[in-house]
Amino acid sequence: MNEQRATNVVWHDHKVERKEREQLLKQKGVILWFTGLSGSGKSTVANEVAYKLQEMGKLAYILDGDNIRHGLNKDLGFSPEARKENIRRISEVANLFADAGLITLTAFISPYAKDRNFCRKLAREGRFLEVYTKASLETCEKRDPKGMYKKARAGEIKDFTGINAPYEEPENPEIIIDTDNETVDESADKVIKKLEDLGLIKR
Amino acid sequence: MNEQRATNVVWHDHKVERKEREQLLKQKGVILWFTGLSGSGKSTVANEVAYKLQEMGKLAYILDGDNIRHGLNKDLGFSPEARKENIRRISEVANLFADAGLITLTAFISPYAKDRNFCRKLAREGRFLEVYTKASLETCEKRDPKGMYKKARAGEIKDFTGINAPYEEPENPEIIIDTDNETVDESADKVIKKLEDLGLIKR
Repeated sequence: MNEQRATNVVWHDHKVERKEREQLLKQKGVILWFTGLSGSGKSTVANEVAYKLQEMGKLAYILDGDNIRHGLNKDLGFSPEARKENIRRISEVANLFADAGLITLTAFISPYAKDRNFCRKLAREGRFLEVYTKASLETCEKRDPKGMYKKARAGEIKDFTGINAPYEEPENPEIIIDTDNETVDESADKVIKKLEDLGLIKR
Repeated sequence: MNEQRATNVVWHDHKVERKEREQLLKQKGVILWFTGLSGSGKSTVANEVAYKLQEMGKLAYILDGDNIRHGLNKDLGFSPEARKENIRRISEVANLFADAGLITLTAFISPYAKDRNFCRKLAREGRFLEVYTKASLETCEKRDPKGMYKKARAGEIKDFTGINAPYEEPENPEIIIDTDNETVDESADKVIKKLEDLGLIKR
């Protein structure tokens, strides 16, 4: 009997696919990749988008410095190689979350076009939306939520994006939010509308 | 006006917490950590559990060799250090998925108690269930789904768990499935029942 039962461990063909999870959730899995200078409002707008989605009964999740840099990527520093590996891992994880059916928001400066494009290529067609969170350096420096610009200007931080390290502007972002001139609410609504226009969510 | 609006980018306190996502999903986020020898049925049973959960309207996601080793962890080999880092990253990602509210199933041999306990400590209390997928080496070797035992016996693979590398049995696993004597269906039901008994899902 044991002998026979052991042979029961075979492939059942009961693999749940992305499409079925999306049907359950009544939404499409997608990556919203927020990119922009420190202080441009990536996390703030991403959180507002996630809040509005939750209110709509949609499942969203944010990957940001808080939950990535202190966990998965805590072994990584800020050298060019480490930054690249940082974005590579975030891309892979974001892709898993999108595969699970979630509206996945990432909020990282991600200054290099090449790194952002790595995630774009990894994602399914039409399931990667680059959200260029645009604000003037002047505005970002004035906001300076973490006091980083001050430190960078004082020479205490090297390679700080916008001050002594480059930020490569997205060439063809799917969404541009202009946080110099929009409220958080307006920017978040713009992102939600894009998700609706693309048929990724329905009210 | 621009000046004023720029100051609108402040914390809204609109952060969606795990609890709210769990309310939306009508389930609790948890990690089901399947551990056992190659061929013991980890992936097979995990897939059956995920299938049954989907049928119940619950959102589950599996992390396994297919989506981790070829993506996030494709830079890692099989040295002791690489194996440890492999499990560390999987643990961090599984913890993010559980935080997102998903019933998160991991299917990796994960032979070392220390590595499995890393994930246990990382997870919220009561949200890590070790699923010891038990089968005799004889059974696993007979099944040998990937022909790995044959290669290991032929000396083509070094450090193969159960043959020339140790497997540390879980001391106090929350669930034991005995795939020598249970059908895939029975094992999967046992896992589902445990989730119900613990109040992590309701029918």
